[in-house]
Amino acid sequence: MSSKGKGTRYERELIHMFYDSNFSVVRSAGSGSTPLPSPDIIVSNSRNIFAIECKAVNSRRKYFSQREINELKAFSEKFGAIPLIAIRFDRIGWFFVNLENLGFSKTNYYISLELAQKKGVKFEEIIGAYKQLKL
Amino acid sequence: MSSKGKGTRYERELIHMFYDSNFSVVRSAGSGSTPLPSPDIIVSNSRNIFAIECKAVNSRRKYFSQREINELKAFSEKFGAIPLIAIRFDRIGWFFVNLENLGFSKTNYYISLELAQKKGVKFEEIIGAYKQLKL
Repeated sequence: MSSKGKGTRYERELIHMFYDSNFSVVRSAGSGSTPLPSPDIIVSNSRNIFAIECKAVNSRRKYFSQREINELKAFSEKFGAIPLIAIRFDRIGWFFVNLENLGFSKTNYYISLELAQKKGVKFEEIIGAYKQLKL
Repeated sequence: MSSKGKGTRYERELIHMFYDSNFSVVRSAGSGSTPLPSPDIIVSNSRNIFAIECKAVNSRRKYFSQREINELKAFSEKFGAIPLIAIRFDRIGWFFVNLENLGFSKTNYYISLELAQKKGVKFEEIIGAYKQLKL
């Protein structure tokens, strides 16, 4: 399966994970149809709104351009959402990483498997954050 | 231009109107790519979040299925957004109609030009609502 095909497949997996956890989900039509920056998906349960860029990788490190991260940050501030990178490592699973916890190397941001395991948050904690806020 | 082409063109017009008014905007990839219901666009300026179905018509009346309206309502409640129908009448312009103000005829909801002019809200008022909330 192509890299793009895998990306779409795992993006769908993530959408269903949120939907099954009682979030409303919008998958963006993407930058092809409109020049305005928007994240891959935006999810909310009325209490927490997350603007999410999704990546599925079979390597141990993924780079992000400064532009990609800055656009996600600007979008989220204006929308009132928490920006997150959702990254899925093959045979390991999903991690959710705050922009403050991205690595930076020369001219690009990155997430390594080690960084994700140390600083990333698992899906259950994302949902858990919501439950704690309800108390 | 086909009805679908016109719809996309006016949806883009609306997206840029919100973007130019300092909203973050996500255009949904639509029901073709995911079976989960989501509105055409979702916009937010951190204070007001609107989940919007966009329609451009060259008639004086537009019908909506109960399913379409119920899905928009359910999505919006869970997301924490205000559901709106944005309807553009040829040579007249955009009106924004709350779900409570839709007409109902036999088995379908509808918006007529008369109803939109009486109960609908103009774009400037949508933006105005935001400015009032800032005070």
